[in-house]
Amino acid sequence: MKIITIVGAGQMACALSFPATQNGNKVRVVGTPLDRDVIETAKTTGFHTLLKRQLPSTGIEYYQIEDVNKALDGADVVICGVSSFGVDWFSDNILPIIPENIPLLSITKGMIDLEDGSMITYPQYFQSKLILNKKLSINAIGGPCTSYELADKDNSVVTFCGYDIDILRTLKSLFESPYYHISLSTDVVGVECAVALKNAYALGVSLAIGLTIGADGLGHEHYNSQAGLFGQSVKEMKHLLEIVGGGEENIILSAGDLYVTVFGGRTRKVGTLLGQGLSIEESIKQLKGVTLESIVIATRTARGVRVLAKRGIVKLSDFPLLMHVDNIINSGAAAVDIPWKAFETEKI
Amino acid sequence: MKIITIVGAGQMACALSFPATQNGNKVRVVGTPLDRDVIETAKTTGFHTLLKRQLPSTGIEYYQIEDVNKALDGADVVICGVSSFGVDWFSDNILPIIPENIPLLSITKGMIDLEDGSMITYPQYFQSKLILNKKLSINAIGGPCTSYELADKDNSVVTFCGYDIDILRTLKSLFESPYYHISLSTDVVGVECAVALKNAYALGVSLAIGLTIGADGLGHEHYNSQAGLFGQSVKEMKHLLEIVGGGEENIILSAGDLYVTVFGGRTRKVGTLLGQGLSIEESIKQLKGVTLESIVIATRTARGVRVLAKRGIVKLSDFPLLMHVDNIINSGAAAVDIPWKAFETEKI
Repeated sequence: MKIITIVGAGQMACALSFPATQNGNKVRVVGTPLDRDVIETAKTTGFHTLLKRQLPSTGIEYYQIEDVNKALDGADVVICGVSSFGVDWFSDNILPIIPENIPLLSITKGMIDLEDGSMITYPQYFQSKLILNKKLSINAIGGPCTSYELADKDNSVVTFCGYDIDILRTLKSLFESPYYHISLSTDVVGVECAVALKNAYALGVSLAIGLTIGADGLGHEHYNSQAGLFGQSVKEMKHLLEIVGGGEENIILSAGDLYVTVFGGRTRKVGTLLGQGLSIEESIKQLKGVTLESIVIATRTARGVRVLAKRGIVKLSDFPLLMHVDNIINSGAAAVDIPWKAFETEKI
Repeated sequence: MKIITIVGAGQMACALSFPATQNGNKVRVVGTPLDRDVIETAKTTGFHTLLKRQLPSTGIEYYQIEDVNKALDGADVVICGVSSFGVDWFSDNILPIIPENIPLLSITKGMIDLEDGSMITYPQYFQSKLILNKKLSINAIGGPCTSYELADKDNSVVTFCGYDIDILRTLKSLFESPYYHISLSTDVVGVECAVALKNAYALGVSLAIGLTIGADGLGHEHYNSQAGLFGQSVKEMKHLLEIVGGGEENIILSAGDLYVTVFGGRTRKVGTLLGQGLSIEESIKQLKGVTLESIVIATRTARGVRVLAKRGIVKLSDFPLLMHVDNIINSGAAAVDIPWKAFETEKI
């Protein structure tokens, strides 16, 4: 039995409590200041208001943020359970109080672009935020897995990544279950970029949903155009993986994760609304209160690629779909103007 | 204006008449002996009974098989429009009467395994069937495109492959349209294998649909398990592409084509029925009259891989999903026993 402390009571983090407790571990869920109501309700009823599920009835305890030190006391693993919008809060408030000998496992997907156009993953970002000489094992989860379905014990295939294979094996032993299947990889950059990028491209693929169902939503959903955008997404993600130095086999993760994300909720909704002809402002308004990581990751990746293109390192023409998505989000371009002809290639 | 003669009045072949006639070409559709009724109805009403659509009202003519020579007279291109079950008929009856100067463009997807475990594409197979010294330009279409949606002018992204880029460019000029987007590739083996394999794996992915909706079909469809099988499919297809010597960038085609096939009809149905617990015989019975190319391609590919494994060229353990699909089809294995743990990897 190990003690797993989750900081950030988001949906995915709390969904992990199912395989964790089933394996006999104790789970402590600590809410961020934004999770106060979630924790309060869970404490009294065991119900997670965002995941919309009863959490495991035994083996789980809930803490408000002021009790975080109590929740960390004796913990064997800490889970970073915040969304990409909470990464700085986590870095400033939680990273400093995690003891060196306790590994961190992060569920946050995303990337940050630097001024020179290079892109870094959250594990790298967390690393850069550690105080001088602090050593912390920072690991992360990638792969196609939506929180609802993990909570419902649908078979899910994920990858844990980190720099120390022994720590990864230990982490795997805490969570592996008959429905939660875990591969391991020490290629942190490859895994994390692969799964971060799919958010941007899921938005791109779902444009085709909105375009075929039309402004009134009554049209018939078509798949040829979705598949065309899916293939183009895989092509561009493959290229981006090369740029960041991730192993090309991680395209397997990108493709699987892109698949589940197109069907999985938030990103599909914003892409569909854009495809139906709404502006980015109107789309965000319709999805009020929902975190839209896809918009952030698309903007950051496009910004990075544009800087790299200016430096002569990549060609913008290799990323027509990413550029289109970015132009919709940040320059008011019409979703309907998908650059189909730019996807055509000649291989001789 | 060019004359395009389609032999085999299948759905995809006839769907091509939309971009073809829109570009001002004349299309002649010749039915196989099995298409007699399809041609008869189309002649009198313009309706394609399998595609369930009105074909273009102008620029298209219909021929029964006894008039095939008339239909070939003056043709600029011949389309092979048969399914994989008609390939031998086409080789025996049509290949010999196509003049050398007329390029062939085939829509048939599939592969044939030879006794030594190697796999050859239909363009290669057609080539092997030509009479001594006959030179014919044999080209083919790959990529994610269902016939219904092409007929409905949904944006579709495909690849024409063949050995002569100039002929490919000419073929492209006949069909490219505002909704039909064509890349070109001289990597015939890579393109054709990429798109053939997806049929086998689409069956694998759709097992998860049947497993989550359950025997009564009332369960909730989940995507984590589909995505897990999708990622595993991409991994195995990538490996198979290497084995046959196709360029690895063709995984883009496999992924897009797998995506559209999972949503596209026949293969999804058989995989779903198997996932729901029906035997292969019961599933085929339920889909009576429907061509099930996925079963053929999965069986052939698995047979090829098993021979290659015996010869020490590949490891069977690298293809757990293909083996599982093959075991369901050919050895009565239960769909539910998906070898999830065999999908897990360690990358150090």
